[in-house]
Order: sequence, then structure tokens, then C-alpha cells
Amino acid sequence: MDKVKVTIVGASGYTGGELIRLLLFHPYAEIKQVTSESWVGKFVYKAHPNLRKNTELKFSSINELEKCDLLFLCLPHGSGMKKINELKKLAPKIIDLSADFRLNDPALYQKWYKSEHTNVELMKDFIYGIPELHREEMKTANFISSAGCNATASILGLYPLVKNNLIDPKNITIEVKVGSSEGGNKSSDASHHPERSGAVRSYQPTGHRHTAEILQELNFGEELNVNLSATSIDMIRGVLATIHVFLNDNLEEKDIWKVYRKEYGNEPFIRIVKEREGNYRYPEPKLLIATNYCDIGFKKDEFSNRLVVISSIDNLMKGAAGQALQAFNIMHGFEERTGLEFPGLHPI
Amino acid sequence: MDKVKVTIVGASGYTGGELIRLLLFHPYAEIKQVTSESWVGKFVYKAHPNLRKNTELKFSSINELEKCDLLFLCLPHGSGMKKINELKKLAPKIIDLSADFRLNDPALYQKWYKSEHTNVELMKDFIYGIPELHREEMKTANFISSAGCNATASILGLYPLVKNNLIDPKNITIEVKVGSSEGGNKSSDASHHPERSGAVRSYQPTGHRHTAEILQELNFGEELNVNLSATSIDMIRGVLATIHVFLNDNLEEKDIWKVYRKEYGNEPFIRIVKEREGNYRYPEPKLLIATNYCDIGFKKDEFSNRLVVISSIDNLMKGAAGQALQAFNIMHGFEERTGLEFPGLHPI
Amino acid sequence: MDKVKVTIVGASGYTGGELIRLLLFHPYAEIKQVTSESWVGKFVYKAHPNLRKNTELKFSSINELEKCDLLFLCLPHGSGMKKINELKKLAPKIIDLSADFRLNDPALYQKWYKSEHTNVELMKDFIYGIPELHREEMKTANFISSAGCNATASILGLYPLVKNNLIDPKNITIEVKVGSSEGGNKSSDASHHPERSGAVRSYQPTGHRHTAEILQELNFGEELNVNLSATSIDMIRGVLATIHVFLNDNLEEKDIWKVYRKEYGNEPFIRIVKEREGNYRYPEPKLLIATNYCDIGFKKDEFSNRLVVISSIDNLMKGAAGQALQAFNIMHGFEERTGLEFPGLHPI
Amino acid sequence: MDKVKVTIVGASGYTGGELIRLLLFHPYAEIKQVTSESWVGKFVYKAHPNLRKNTELKFSSINELEKCDLLFLCLPHGSGMKKINELKKLAPKIIDLSADFRLNDPALYQKWYKSEHTNVELMKDFIYGIPELHREEMKTANFISSAGCNATASILGLYPLVKNNLIDPKNITIEVKVGSSEGGNKSSDASHHPERSGAVRSYQPTGHRHTAEILQELNFGEELNVNLSATSIDMIRGVLATIHVFLNDNLEEKDIWKVYRKEYGNEPFIRIVKEREGNYRYPEPKLLIATNYCDIGFKKDEFSNRLVVISSIDNLMKGAAGQALQAFNIMHGFEERTGLEFPGLHPI
Repeated sequence: MDKVKVTIVGASGYTGGELIRLLLFHPYAEIKQVTSESWVGKFVYKAHPNLRKNTELKFSSINELEKCDLLFLCLPHGSGMKKINELKKLAPKIIDLSADFRLNDPALYQKWYKSEHTNVELMKDFIYGIPELHREEMKTANFISSAGCNATASILGLYPLVKNNLIDPKNITIEVKVGSSEGGNKSSDASHHPERSGAVRSYQPTGHRHTAEILQELNFGEELNVNLSATSIDMIRGVLATIHVFLNDNLEEKDIWKVYRKEYGNEPFIRIVKEREGNYRYPEPKLLIATNYCDIGFKKDEFSNRLVVISSIDNLMKGAAGQALQAFNIMHGFEERTGLEFPGLHPI
Repeated sequence: MDKVKVTIVGASGYTGGELIRLLLFHPYAEIKQVTSESWVGKFVYKAHPNLRKNTELKFSSINELEKCDLLFLCLPHGSGMKKINELKKLAPKIIDLSADFRLNDPALYQKWYKSEHTNVELMKDFIYGIPELHREEMKTANFISSAGCNATASILGLYPLVKNNLIDPKNITIEVKVGSSEGGNKSSDASHHPERSGAVRSYQPTGHRHTAEILQELNFGEELNVNLSATSIDMIRGVLATIHVFLNDNLEEKDIWKVYRKEYGNEPFIRIVKEREGNYRYPEPKLLIATNYCDIGFKKDEFSNRLVVISSIDNLMKGAAGQALQAFNIMHGFEERTGLEFPGLHPI
Repeated sequence: MDKVKVTIVGASGYTGGELIRLLLFHPYAEIKQVTSESWVGKFVYKAHPNLRKNTELKFSSINELEKCDLLFLCLPHGSGMKKINELKKLAPKIIDLSADFRLNDPALYQKWYKSEHTNVELMKDFIYGIPELHREEMKTANFISSAGCNATASILGLYPLVKNNLIDPKNITIEVKVGSSEGGNKSSDASHHPERSGAVRSYQPTGHRHTAEILQELNFGEELNVNLSATSIDMIRGVLATIHVFLNDNLEEKDIWKVYRKEYGNEPFIRIVKEREGNYRYPEPKLLIATNYCDIGFKKDEFSNRLVVISSIDNLMKGAAGQALQAFNIMHGFEERTGLEFPGLHPI
Repeated sequence: MDKVKVTIVGASGYTGGELIRLLLFHPYAEIKQVTSESWVGKFVYKAHPNLRKNTELKFSSINELEKCDLLFLCLPHGSGMKKINELKKLAPKIIDLSADFRLNDPALYQKWYKSEHTNVELMKDFIYGIPELHREEMKTANFISSAGCNATASILGLYPLVKNNLIDPKNITIEVKVGSSEGGNKSSDASHHPERSGAVRSYQPTGHRHTAEILQELNFGEELNVNLSATSIDMIRGVLATIHVFLNDNLEEKDIWKVYRKEYGNEPFIRIVKEREGNYRYPEPKLLIATNYCDIGFKKDEFSNRLVVISSIDNLMKGAAGQALQAFNIMHGFEERTGLEFPGLHPI
């Protein structure tokens, strides 16, 4: 079988680096080009030192791009929507890892991004990139837009509950704890180690853009109120969403178990984590580093109808490059776990 | 002026150590005895190595206690309620830092602690230890029960809103991020560094006992629903509570400012932290290490009536020893900040 | 080809867990049994939660062991030398990951371990487990003793210099910075998070037992003086050795390069890391997490004949399970990198 | 008594902030002005958020400086030597916290700083800022140059041994572990949290400029060879120097004790830390956060004449602002501990 020839546009950042790492070990993919304007002509391992002795690939300029089978776009948010009309001439398939084509409603985009979308006609062409919700569409899709990391953790935690109409959609509160790699590889005063290390920074108490994705993807007819706050903690990789919802009926935990099993029982990358004892009774982001899993747990309040759902991923994997590769596998009919087998580490 | 002679019972733990540290530098207090059964006869600095060269004090046994002016009790939860009838013969005043006398309703205690309170008659004698709520009673009190750390952060964040009837009391969601020192100085598998470091552990998604204190202290006539979850993060000292509430009326942020200023404008240890820019726009626990401040900030959701309140303290200071010393100052008519002037560090 | 049937004795610890993780993905190995006395009958993923959904294997007792092709022993130090005469009846090949059979001289053992070796006759049968030094012997070996983690980093950093007689063997100073997983998975006061987190603990300024391995392996005729100190830092996985040596002749850095290239140019798991710029100019343990690499760099002092060699590994991989698997591959004629391809992560 | 009126030039950085914090609580000092060109007219607590509610001071421009009793200079290295001739007209006394006037030999400066000193005539006027070595001169000094942080830890650890001719001066190896605040408050790619957090970065294996200070201050007639390497670890504040030296005579540890006691027995800020058990047997930087102590411990090698000396400080306190204030106290005849009483925290 011929390998799929892929090119990564904007490959010097964290998401691009993670894609390169994964693709180098993917048996059915071949990296044709990787671009970075600031690293043109330099070895990939200069930007991604973990890849020393693993590849002799060098960065190209976006102006030197050749035709290929699929483009991964890892451009800054807002940049892809300008360049994509040109880029789509180069490959029949595109997976975009920016935020530009996650939403399909221009008004929703404008509300949360505070600016007009400049490529409205393409918005509808993209499949939202969570395979657990859109697997069938992905099988024949040419354009996939990778989901936001905090959105992925939140949506996967909530999806079985909202879809099965088990909770009050008007009262969903999500508190995400996030690591510093979410902010990308550009340094700033906010990321300066003496300030950022040890921080518990309420960087987005309200107004987080990923809310829009949650509203879009969990719309099963009834409008939702989603109260999302994001707090940066001293962690590099990882998202943990603590989600407070209120059950419509007096369900017991075993009923909740059944719902999650029904929806996710065959999912290769979802694990229900809920144990009676030990240090890892609920999802723990550090166990997920370098894996494509989304671990989900829950606990019902003894004194009320509150259910607390805990959902966790590695933001660079299931929250970005890993989920994109999962979509890539589905698009091409490869076994979905291909290249994503890493089980995670303990201790770490 | 004669110094107040104080004794600390159970002084080898983190809270006891912090009290010793503070009292050594308090101009109007003198430490008479400190007890620890496992360290009897040993220098205090063996258990608290930060105090090397600062004191030659040695630990005594609880059986060797002499009369004094005031007892600080730092015994394990459940232990004080058994011993206190004996201990109160030794001193006219007691400040108890355990959880034993925080609640004044035996039924509330039983509901949250899952065991019967064995000293019900004394429950009513204790003033709940948050000066911002009980300063007047403290001035003449003989028995003060120190407040729980997560309860302190939560109550102080919510108090102006609930008291002034600004929010829906039926829908209060609190997500506390806590450090490892909350668990005390006893090692366990849960506190083993390779497991605990880097953890984002949902150690109490529901059922946190401090909920009872919040319900008690914020009861202004209407019953509250408080949804509290606690997540352990990689931090030693510190609590940050992210509190989601819903405004009854369409208040603006400037109105909220006014309410907080009205309630806390003269408080020496409360700072409203809410800035437009910089890394410290909201309360940050690391800035509070070794201080007695409770920093409180807030942000109104642009698209809903949600208000996010952020409240942070050092759990060993404003959440334990510092707040106990603040109460001590009030009880004795000393300037409230005495011995609690440390402003915090930057960077840290 | 039939897979090699392996059993891991003492598999509930960190090293055992790491071996299970690696062997589950090894194409030519099959795990037959894993033992743990405290976890008998329980799923492996209860002890190693990273392996959830990756294996349904359960722990057996050491008393239930069956014959197999190879035993990995991950028993506590001192325990293997007692049990090994029984255990070797079960399999023709053994790889021991404890410290019991690293040294081949009983006197050297007694000097550094302060106790008599109780299985002297077997000491000589074990090949010391660093493939870069003993690859040829490993090809036909039945007994391999895994090397100490700090010893591995130190020996690999020094080997080309000592072997080629380039440095003063009487003046070698090694300062290793180590993580908490070196201490294993048993909790203690020393590993309690509030004490261990943020620590820079001089836990072994002198007398570190791994010194004995360095002396044994780098003995090319002339006796060595090795001054080893070990400092624990706030890290879970990782060793970084900073090694100060003094060049016999006025060699330049390019001459040093040549020597390292000559010795290690074909080594699959050694990388010379020495760059002019960037954050990763020298070996960095965090880049090595989950990899089997030993990264080595160096810098010559401008004003003296001092050469500083920097050598780094993941203590659970190249310092334990990874290196054991590398030896396993060599023993069986498998490509040496099999199952050890993971390149490491960035950022992490 | 009139308070000493002091002004801090370059007060928006970490060292300047620390000085402000200390001086705000100093009973005999009064801050007259603090300068920062980028923060002119803004409240000090905007740059130093720990000082919220502690001062209403605002930043001035260096062009608005008025006369005062003493200037603290916290300008970038190289900047002070240009401006000082102007600045010294403003105050009779100067304490310079930059590196510009630490050395008194222009040739030594040129060798280590790779550039010519442009204010050679002033070099001799400054007293090197370690009180334990220069207390008498400080009492009458007008110009004091604060010592480098790594130099302070190293010099104080070595001073009793070199002065008393106990060790081989030709073979001194120092490995310093340092935190990120040493690099100041300017962000860079090197300080970007995802890269810097968890790092064990060999940022200066050779050629560290503080070596020059060590050579200057420990010159008791015989020339020294000092092999200094600096490794950045995941810590914000703190220096720990592990120093390997070789005893001339077969001294026992009790003899070493005597020497340290003789030299430092009356020193208010030096503690000899050497215990048989516990987690804090040797100096630990985290216990020193916010204190002015230099903790020193040692261990003799059982098998050789090597002595390992461990010396630790808070780089912003005893390594910068704290030591500067100690010198300030000595210059003015104040009790040396004034304003420097903070004992440190446990846990932290």
C-alpha cells in the first residue's frame, strides 16, 4: 500500500511538533514537507529537540509547498481562514488544527471571537473534529477541523448526559484546569517561569471561546447555558474539566454508568475511570501525557441531584495532534488506534 | 504590659508549627509550653527546621501541661472534643484549630461528619473563627473555633453577596483548588511525591465537610444549595476557590464593587483584586504564602447573569494559624494585624 | 516465530510496571506471569493505572510461578540473592534489575553495601547490564544484572574518556541530580509531598553505592578516585550527572567530539548533545522521559584543563526497565531498538 | 532618631521589589523615591503585586531623583558603571546591587566579563558586600557592592576552610543549583514555562562570572583553582552549592565543626546544618525562602579525604536584597538583624 503523503503547514509550534512525532512512527503515512517561516532550511530537531536522531527532515517555506495527499494546518488562529483557499489547491484533504473552522455558524463565531469570520462559505464544509460524535461523517470527509482542547474534554464528558436528556441543560458549570502548553510556544510575560510556575491563575473566568464549540456540539434541540471558567495551574500538558450538572431524575450512579457505557463502550480512546480507592479514582491528566485517551469519571452528590463529571485529556494529543491523527485514520480507513497506541506512564 | 502566656497543644504538625512561628515574633504573647507526644523533650526546631536559631523551646507532653492564659488546640479532628473538658481547666480562653467546634448544630455535624458529636453541650460556646463575620462576639469570647480553610475562602468570597441578597442561594457552585499541606504532615501513599507531584486529583468531588460551615455561616434566612468540589493540585500552601453564582438583578461590575467595598472596605486582611491587565488580575495563592490576606476578585459573564467570584488564601495562615492569631488579637484588644504584617513575596 | 515467554517477579513497583508497559507492546515477547504478593489476584492496572484498557493481566503470587523462557527480577535489593537459586530453576535466562548481582567482587560489595554478599558463587555469572560496554558478552549470556541508574549515566558519560586514557583517573567528581522515582513506590516521611516538593535535598553527599559500579566498570588498569554526590530535586523521572574531569593533554573540544563519536557513533541509544544555542544545548532529562536514550554533552573550561561532561537518562528506562529490555533484545538477537522506539516529548 | 532616607534606582525588578518590601518594614529607614523608567507614575504594587495594600508609593523617573541619604542601585549589569558618577552626587552613600563594582582588579573583570571596565577609578572604592568577611570595613564604608548570589553561597561555604588552610586550593569543584529568579524579571524563550518548568538545564557548565568573586575573596596568598558549574532547576528562589574539596590533613568531622564554629559562631545569619536524621539533615533552599540566612553543612567521605560542603541561600535575600540590607544596618550601626528577622517557612 502506498503511504499517504502528508504535509504540515506551520510545524514549528507545539501542535506541529507533536504531529511530526506521531507521523514519523505512523506505518501508513509519510511526511512530505513541514513548513516554518522562521526555521526554513533548518533541521526539524532544532525546533523539536526530542526528535534528535529520529529524523533528518528540514523545514520548508510555505511558498515552497508541493502537492500532497493531505495537509495538516497548524497555523495561528485567524491565519488559516485567509490562506486556505490557496492551500486547498495543493491537496484534496485538509485537517485544520486552528480554531478557524470549528464553528459552522458565522454569528456564533462573531459572538465569541469578537470579529467577523472572513471565509464564511467554507465554514460548512468542515466536519467538527471529535470522532466520537462525527465518526461516520469523517469516513467520507475531505475537510476536518480539529476541536479545541477544553471543548474536547467538556463535550466528551457531557455528551452522553445531554444526548440522553438526563440533565438540566440550563445549568451546566464547567471549571477547566489547564497547563501552560495551551498557550503555545511563544514566550511572554505571562509565561515567564518565576511568574507562571506555581501559579493558579484565573485567566478566563468568563468568555472562553471554547464555550461556542460546546454549545454547538451539544445542541440536541434545547438551548444550553454553559458556565465555563478556565484556571491555569502549574502543569505543562493536560486539561481536567470538573463539570457540575443537575440530574432531571433521581438517577443512581449505576444508571449513569449504563449511559456512559452505551455511548462509549466501544470507543477506543475513552475510558470510564471511577474507582473506590487508590490515588487514581478519577481521571488524572498526568497519566494521560502522550496518550490519546479521554478519561471520564463522575460522582453523584449524596445530598442533592448534582452530578460531578470529571473529564481529562492531554491537550496536545486528544486535544490537538492525537485527535487529528485519529481523524486521519478514520478518513483513510486505517485502524483508528494506528500510531496512537502509547498507553501513558506511571509514575510521571 | 504583661505578655499573654499561651500554650499550644499538638504543636508538631503544620498548623502548630505555623502558630509557633507567629507567636515567637508576637510582641504581646509568650509561648509557655508546646506539646507533642512523639517529640517530647526534643527541640522544637527538630520538627520545624525553619525555626533553627530562632528558639530553644522544647516539646512537652500533654500530661505536663501547666496553667496559662490561653490554649491553642491543634489536635487531630475528633480528639479535641474528648479532651477539652479537661483542658479547659488549664486556661480561661481556648482557640481550637480542629474541626470539632466549628458547627453549632449537632444534626449538621452528624450529617457531614458521619458520626455523632460527643460534646454537644460545648458546641454553642464556641464562636466561629472568621473575624470578618464575628468580630464583635470575639471581643468578649473565651472560646473560638478556627474555621476550615476551604470554608474560609468560600465564605469570605460569598458573604457580601448572600448577606445583601444579590444572588440565587439555590445555585452556588464552588470549585476549590487546594495544596498538599491541607492534608497535614503525616505521609501516606496519597502524598508520595511521585504520585502527588503534578497531580490534578479530584479528591472530593462531592461531600466535602467544609460545606457544612458554609451553610451555617451564610444562612441569612433562606436555605442555600452549595455545590462544592475540591481538587488537589501541585501546590503546597494555598487555596483558590472559583465560585459560580447567579445574580438576582442585572447588576454591573461596579455595583458588585460597591457591595464588596461596603462590607470589606475597612477589613485589614481582605483585598479586592481585580485588574485589567498583568499576570495578577485576580487573586493568586502564591502571592499569599505566609500572609493572612484573603484576596477576592470577580468577573461578570458578558452573556448571562453569572458572576464568578475568585477567593484565595494561604490555608495555613488565613485558613488556620494566621486567622487564629487574628482572633487572638481581637480577643485581647491588640491591634488586629499584630504579628501578621508579612506582606507576601514576589516572585515566589 | 514463537514469542519469548517472560515472567516478571516483583511487578507492582515502578520498575516492574515500566517493564510490563514495554513488554505489552514488544512484538516478540509475551508476558506469561507477573507477581506481587500484595496484589495477588488483582488486575495489573490497579497498581499501574496507566495500563487501564491495555491489559487484562492479573498479578500472581511468587509461589505460583511456572516455567518460562526468561525471568525479569524486580525484587527489593538483598531479596534476589536469597531467592535466585530457586528462581533459576524456572527459566534458562534471568535479567535481574536489583543491585544484587551488579558487582563481581564480594569485597567491593561489602565495602559499599556494608553487609556480606550471601550468594558469592553467582556473582561472577552475571554480565553487567550496560550494552554499550558489554554487548558481545550479552549475546550469549544467560544472566544479566541491570545497572544502577546513577551508575549508568555516570559510566556512559565517562567511558570514552577513561578508556582512551584522556583524563586524570584520580580526580573525577560527579554530581548527580535525581528524581523521586529513584526511591521506589513506597511512601515515607521523606517522600511526603509538602516536604519533598521543591526540595533540593543533599541525600547522599558521600558514600553512594553506585560508586562501586563506576569503579568496577571503568577500571582499565589504573585505579580511579570517584567523588560522587547525589542531590534530590523536584522531578519524578530523570537523572542528570554533571561530571568534572581533568584532561591529561591540552585537547580541544573537537578532539573530544572525535573520541565520543568513535566510541558511540553507532550506538542506537546514545546521542551527543552539544549545541551553540537554544534551551537544549546540553542533555535535558525531561526530554528523555519514556525514552531509552542516554544523552551526553560536554564543555571544556576556557581557563583550565577541566572538562565538564553532562550525561542524562530516564532512571526508569535507560536506568532500569528500558536498558533491561535492550539487553533482552541483544540476548535474543532482536533488533536492539525493538519496543524502545519512543522518541520523547516536547514540551513536557 | 531621624530615619535614613533611601532611594532605590531601578526598582521594578525582582531585587528592587525585594528591597522595597524589606524597607517598608524597616523601623529606621524611609523610602524616599523608587525609580523605573517603564513604570513612571504607576503604583509600586502594579509591578510588585505582593505589596498591594502595603504601600501607596509610586515609581519616579531616574531624571527626577532628589538628594537622599543612601542610594540602592539595582540597575542592569554594565549600566551602573556609566551612571554612577552622576548618581553619587545625590547621596553620600551607595549600595550597588549590580555586578559592576564587585571586583577590584580591572584585569580580573576583563577576563571574566569579556569587556573592559569603564570606571576603573571607582572599583577600589567599593567594599565587597559580604558582611561575614568585611564587617569592619563596612562600618565606615560609603560604597558597598553587593555580592553575587552564587558567589555568596560558595564563598561562605569555603571561607573557613581556605582561610585556615585546611584544603587543597588547587582542587575546588562547585556545583550550584539555581532557580529561575536569578535571571531577572524579563521573559525570554529560555524562561517560557513549558520549556523552563521541570528543566535541569546546564546553563553554565564553565565560565560562570561569579567565579571571579570567589577567586578574589578567598585569596589568602595562594592562588585557587575553582571549578564552578551552574545548573538551573525547577525552582524560583534559591541557590544550593555542593562544594567538593580535599582536606590537607586527616581531619575528622568534629574538627571541621570547630573551624566553622570559630569563624561563624557569632554570625547572626549563618547556621551550621548537619543532622543525623530527618528530611533536613543538610541545608535546604526552600526553608530559606524570604530569610537572610546562609545555611552550611558538610560531610566527610568515608573512603577519601574529600569533604563535601553544602551551602544554601535565597538568591534574592542573602544573595541580593537581604544582604544589602544587612550591610545597610552595619553601615548605620543598627542591630544587624533589623528588618531581616523572618525565620522562613515550613512547609513551603
